[in-house]
Amino acid sequence: MNRFNTYRDSFPNAHLTRSKTGVLEVVLHTDNDTLVFNGHTHEQFVDLFHAIGSDRDNRVVILTGAGNAFMETINPEGFDFFTPQGYDKIYREGRKVLMNILDIEVPMIAAVNGPVRLHSEYILLADIVLATPATVFQDKPHFEIGVASGDGVHLLWQEAIGTIRGRYFILTRQELDAQTVQAWGAVNEIVPANKLIERAREIGEALAKLPPLTSKYTRIAMTQKLRRIIDEGVTLGLALEGISAADIAPRTAT
Amino acid sequence: MNRFNTYRDSFPNAHLTRSKTGVLEVVLHTDNDTLVFNGHTHEQFVDLFHAIGSDRDNRVVILTGAGNAFMETINPEGFDFFTPQGYDKIYREGRKVLMNILDIEVPMIAAVNGPVRLHSEYILLADIVLATPATVFQDKPHFEIGVASGDGVHLLWQEAIGTIRGRYFILTRQELDAQTVQAWGAVNEIVPANKLIERAREIGEALAKLPPLTSKYTRIAMTQKLRRIIDEGVTLGLALEGISAADIAPRTAT
Amino acid sequence: MNRFNTYRDSFPNAHLTRSKTGVLEVVLHTDNDTLVFNGHTHEQFVDLFHAIGSDRDNRVVILTGAGNAFMETINPEGFDFFTPQGYDKIYREGRKVLMNILDIEVPMIAAVNGPVRLHSEYILLADIVLATPATVFQDKPHFEIGVASGDGVHLLWQEAIGTIRGRYFILTRQELDAQTVQAWGAVNEIVPANKLIERAREIGEALAKLPPLTSKYTRIAMTQKLRRIIDEGVTLGLALEGISAADIAPRTAT
Amino acid sequence: MNRFNTYRDSFPNAHLTRSKTGVLEVVLHTDNDTLVFNGHTHEQFVDLFHAIGSDRDNRVVILTGAGNAFMETINPEGFDFFTPQGYDKIYREGRKVLMNILDIEVPMIAAVNGPVRLHSEYILLADIVLATPATVFQDKPHFEIGVASGDGVHLLWQEAIGTIRGRYFILTRQELDAQTVQAWGAVNEIVPANKLIERAREIGEALAKLPPLTSKYTRIAMTQKLRRIIDEGVTLGLALEGISAADIAPRTAT
Amino acid sequence: MNRFNTYRDSFPNAHLTRSKTGVLEVVLHTDNDTLVFNGHTHEQFVDLFHAIGSDRDNRVVILTGAGNAFMETINPEGFDFFTPQGYDKIYREGRKVLMNILDIEVPMIAAVNGPVRLHSEYILLADIVLATPATVFQDKPHFEIGVASGDGVHLLWQEAIGTIRGRYFILTRQELDAQTVQAWGAVNEIVPANKLIERAREIGEALAKLPPLTSKYTRIAMTQKLRRIIDEGVTLGLALEGISAADIAPRTAT
Amino acid sequence: MNRFNTYRDSFPNAHLTRSKTGVLEVVLHTDNDTLVFNGHTHEQFVDLFHAIGSDRDNRVVILTGAGNAFMETINPEGFDFFTPQGYDKIYREGRKVLMNILDIEVPMIAAVNGPVRLHSEYILLADIVLATPATVFQDKPHFEIGVASGDGVHLLWQEAIGTIRGRYFILTRQELDAQTVQAWGAVNEIVPANKLIERAREIGEALAKLPPLTSKYTRIAMTQKLRRIIDEGVTLGLALEGISAADIAPRTAT
Repeated sequence: MNRFNTYRDSFPNAHLTRSKTGVLEVVLHTDNDTLVFNGHTHEQFVDLFHAIGSDRDNRVVILTGAGNAFMETINPEGFDFFTPQGYDKIYREGRKVLMNILDIEVPMIAAVNGPVRLHSEYILLADIVLATPATVFQDKPHFEIGVASGDGVHLLWQEAIGTIRGRYFILTRQELDAQTVQAWGAVNEIVPANKLIERAREIGEALAKLPPLTSKYTRIAMTQKLRRIIDEGVTLGLALEGISAADIAPRTAT
Repeated sequence: MNRFNTYRDSFPNAHLTRSKTGVLEVVLHTDNDTLVFNGHTHEQFVDLFHAIGSDRDNRVVILTGAGNAFMETINPEGFDFFTPQGYDKIYREGRKVLMNILDIEVPMIAAVNGPVRLHSEYILLADIVLATPATVFQDKPHFEIGVASGDGVHLLWQEAIGTIRGRYFILTRQELDAQTVQAWGAVNEIVPANKLIERAREIGEALAKLPPLTSKYTRIAMTQKLRRIIDEGVTLGLALEGISAADIAPRTAT
Repeated sequence: MNRFNTYRDSFPNAHLTRSKTGVLEVVLHTDNDTLVFNGHTHEQFVDLFHAIGSDRDNRVVILTGAGNAFMETINPEGFDFFTPQGYDKIYREGRKVLMNILDIEVPMIAAVNGPVRLHSEYILLADIVLATPATVFQDKPHFEIGVASGDGVHLLWQEAIGTIRGRYFILTRQELDAQTVQAWGAVNEIVPANKLIERAREIGEALAKLPPLTSKYTRIAMTQKLRRIIDEGVTLGLALEGISAADIAPRTAT
Repeated sequence: MNRFNTYRDSFPNAHLTRSKTGVLEVVLHTDNDTLVFNGHTHEQFVDLFHAIGSDRDNRVVILTGAGNAFMETINPEGFDFFTPQGYDKIYREGRKVLMNILDIEVPMIAAVNGPVRLHSEYILLADIVLATPATVFQDKPHFEIGVASGDGVHLLWQEAIGTIRGRYFILTRQELDAQTVQAWGAVNEIVPANKLIERAREIGEALAKLPPLTSKYTRIAMTQKLRRIIDEGVTLGLALEGISAADIAPRTAT
Repeated sequence: MNRFNTYRDSFPNAHLTRSKTGVLEVVLHTDNDTLVFNGHTHEQFVDLFHAIGSDRDNRVVILTGAGNAFMETINPEGFDFFTPQGYDKIYREGRKVLMNILDIEVPMIAAVNGPVRLHSEYILLADIVLATPATVFQDKPHFEIGVASGDGVHLLWQEAIGTIRGRYFILTRQELDAQTVQAWGAVNEIVPANKLIERAREIGEALAKLPPLTSKYTRIAMTQKLRRIIDEGVTLGLALEGISAADIAPRTAT
Repeated sequence: MNRFNTYRDSFPNAHLTRSKTGVLEVVLHTDNDTLVFNGHTHEQFVDLFHAIGSDRDNRVVILTGAGNAFMETINPEGFDFFTPQGYDKIYREGRKVLMNILDIEVPMIAAVNGPVRLHSEYILLADIVLATPATVFQDKPHFEIGVASGDGVHLLWQEAIGTIRGRYFILTRQELDAQTVQAWGAVNEIVPANKLIERAREIGEALAKLPPLTSKYTRIAMTQKLRRIIDEGVTLGLALEGISAADIAPRTAT
């Protein structure tokens, strides 16, 4: 359990706790309430998932949020979206954060504690998705800011709910409730908010009972296809998003 | 708006109109009624979609049909299906028409105005699919003529509704109504026939408000996977369809 | 019909009969009751599907089981799972059996006569899936034995019912009933047990009426993608499963 | 021969002549001397190769240049490289021109009449490469202008001469003479300048004697891999080149 | 050594002998002299390589020919090339024979005893290629007969000697001597004819000393890419070759 | 230059220095002489390349060795090769180290200061390869230890020097001198030992003069294909290597 101590308190926007059996809980938050995503968390989460994936004592990972939503708002602080060099930082981080989630080679459970209006692709890279009745999913900020949607949501939703549903979801900024997403295949269970983490732990502890290579190699074998989608599709998608951002820069600059 | 004038009246089987904001409506038709597909339209549509894709003033494309159906009947006129050299023309056109649809690099909305019994793959290459309550989908002519189904429907339906449903659909010549296809994910909205085009325009105009590179690059990023399915899968599928056609030629020839 | 005689009685765990039109029925069984899977059937089925695929007089293949289940139990007899050299035999057979099913280049109908708790990937490689009301699907033995799930179920269920549903199914050893699997897209029809084979024959005979290259090339064109999933994904998955088996060997050895 | 007349005189920078047997010669030029590449030729060549590929009477294509070089200099006229919307035009054309060369589905012979310092990827998409002793190859303008090299040379040279040689060639702006490139595999024959076109015709006429589907389908089958390299690799490469161009824009703007 | 006895004498055109250490020698022949390829050998070799690959006691395989050439002439006997149904048999066999070579999961050594003018792709699927000084390579019969070259040579030569060299080799029916092919990378050693088999055995016996899984898994890991080239590229290439054959049928029929 | 200070002295087996322009030199060593590879360096280099890739101030990376060889000997210290759980650590590190080299998104120059008998794949992931006259390349330890060769050399040598040469190189433990490897394409320049680093710096400083996104995006665009080879091919290759190691464990254990 030594390695855990080197990083457990390193991430201002993630509470980390781990059960004796190796079930790690990751609670994304801002000041103990729902995370406000900004340029600093974009950078921080690259390192967060890297640290988690590098620690072989993590046997199962539960990803959840604080407060009543998983992630709803984005704050421009710490982002330089509109210059190519500024965007280059986002480009690298955006690709790395997803590959680092896939490099967590143990089963992952997303316990979606409420609305997710950005970076819902984190959730679709988990193997098991639990959501509360009040959860809704949306790809909101891309078109609100005015940039192309290329960070992974544009591919993983197609993969999870089908190609026609997935593209409509992005293009119309559709808000999908948990029941619909469950009917469409991207939520496994809807659980009352006050039972959510408990249910995630129950599944997690069952998985932690498997021999370590067994659960790990099942995750690796099951997610190989997702690695290619991310490595190729997000490398392209974020590049295009970057050009679209450069294009609208004059309008947003003073 | 100059370029539009060079092709808007060039296609006897497609009415083209464009809103001020760049939402292009493409109505496939035969004498202002439902299209009767034949060898001439097969050739014409290659050029039609090429012209549309080459015009950067098209910001959104709506694809629809005339009369009470989108496409139901095929007429052998203009096709030479049963000699290798005759089929070679179909082979090239069949591959090009789909790549040309994908080369339309702006959001596409299919407004399916009624039954589609052939070339439903055009619709699945759109990003958004609206259908009327009376719409049904089927892959009818391949097995009716007696040739293999390899023109794209054999892959895109698997992609859109799942591998087992998609293969059953082709092999049993299943007729699927709009409600079922919506439940299975390949129709986004069912809209009364007399509201269909209006709803398509509403979505189209909303998309036309996005910065031009934003909507375009979202389409490119979202459809990269479909390009490979078409370029590889239809190149193979249509070759096999061609051999199957050559095989039954003696039976159909006088 | 000559070639059929060379193999029809060669497989102790498969009854083979063929209609005049070339619809082959394959009934997997142990002593005329539900198959008990073991190391000998693992080897035998490689040859079984190879023989079927090599006989050009087979025009359609129906795959079904005997008794009240399709496949529920596995018997360690004939398997050497826990030494690398023993596993190597399983490794080759496990990859070959699935490629040999795909090398059956005519339409395949799975008539699932009851519960399937292992090797349900055989069924998903068929083009049409019929099931009885009492059918349930599960990936049971991998985690029960304690090894990684890498033999094809880990990929084909994701392909058939979606990436999130498919991974949950494997990781939680979920039991899915026929109605649910139909709603999720991997069963086409639910048929009373006493009508099952009749319905499969009805579909099979309809397909047998197609010109032979037509049905064959449609199958080839529709399953090209599955070949890659199997050839690459099972080659990796079974290698990882093998390491996980080697790891738990000491615990299971006396 | 009718179709040829519709486009033979349409391209100010390409002389087109065709032998009775269907061997088309395409001489790229500026005022009958070596081509000066600019924004107008970038656009024109998209249409040029599209027209050639669409004409089924072209049985073999010879691509060559005028004067003492194939292509050496680039002129900024007609290019808007440094704004995202300007670059978007280059982006589409850059991808289309290469796919349009691959859509020429008959054998192509590059008769390289002298130095090639840009767009040498056109040549590597031909099936047969002849060069004069004075020919040299280089990727000069990308780094001279200061933008990333992503238009196809970055991948096709690796494909043609090896991954390590190909990357060195790009990064060091290496100039390779014809003898070296022949030794490395990307030139088939070195022919004196005054015999070059004669030798190309000799090969071309031999190929034109093959049955039309035979030569055509050999080209299609041999170049399928190149299509994927271009469609995926140039879509990414040019997007990245575009961001790099946007980045250096302020330095080049007044 | 039991299994070997079941097939060692089953192939009229292949002499099989095996050393005590498991080095299998396969000598292709016709009446103990150089093989004359025909429709019967096309079918026979599918089974030959399948039998070899299925026998786990084969530890290394040496493939060679009888007489002064490896394979030079093709005899139409047993082929029905010009009807779709006749071609369908060739289509299946042509794909299977190459996959069956790749399913030989132990190191393979080609000992090329003289000219190879057809099916040189067998040799390129070996891991080690030895040739005599008199060996030449050519793809002769495809264009001589008048059909497209799509059986694997069209892709494997590009893979082995480079994309430009490989396409020229096919299109010009180029004859390459052993020295050139060695310089270009597809022959490892040139060995006098009377030392050829001895040298192959020397290398084979060295490989047979490795632990069995070690040599086998190195072959599997090294050839995964070739499997995809064959499975996808030959499935397409042979389909196109088939259409080209159907096209020229009238000219060859009486 | 701040970030550099956080890791420059963190790696006992790598000296790191950086020029003012951002050209980083990485000298792998053991006590200032040629590196002795062992389990600790295997782990350390994962972090080393991760740190280098994460520092955006590195503009070019030169990789070289200390003493008269780049890497020749492997020491079992710190490796647990023969138990599945021990191997699992090697498995993860072996995959990560190569992806981390590819995640260095700036031009890389390998300055090969002498013999390389293991992990030569590090060098082939660089874009430019310089070698001394005394350099030789070999894949020595895999077969010496008795395990399959699956760590990347089995694929990257095929990519760099051709499929037949690459497989022979692995299977026969061939030693290739620098001149041969240059002739075959995987060494760009042979430089006297005492001029090696100087020449590397010269090339590096030229590259450092390019605008930062320009050189970086050229590297990303040029190496996308290598990412897939590594991510898929090494994930499989090392799994197979692991099973082969487990197999020979009893022979090496006391």
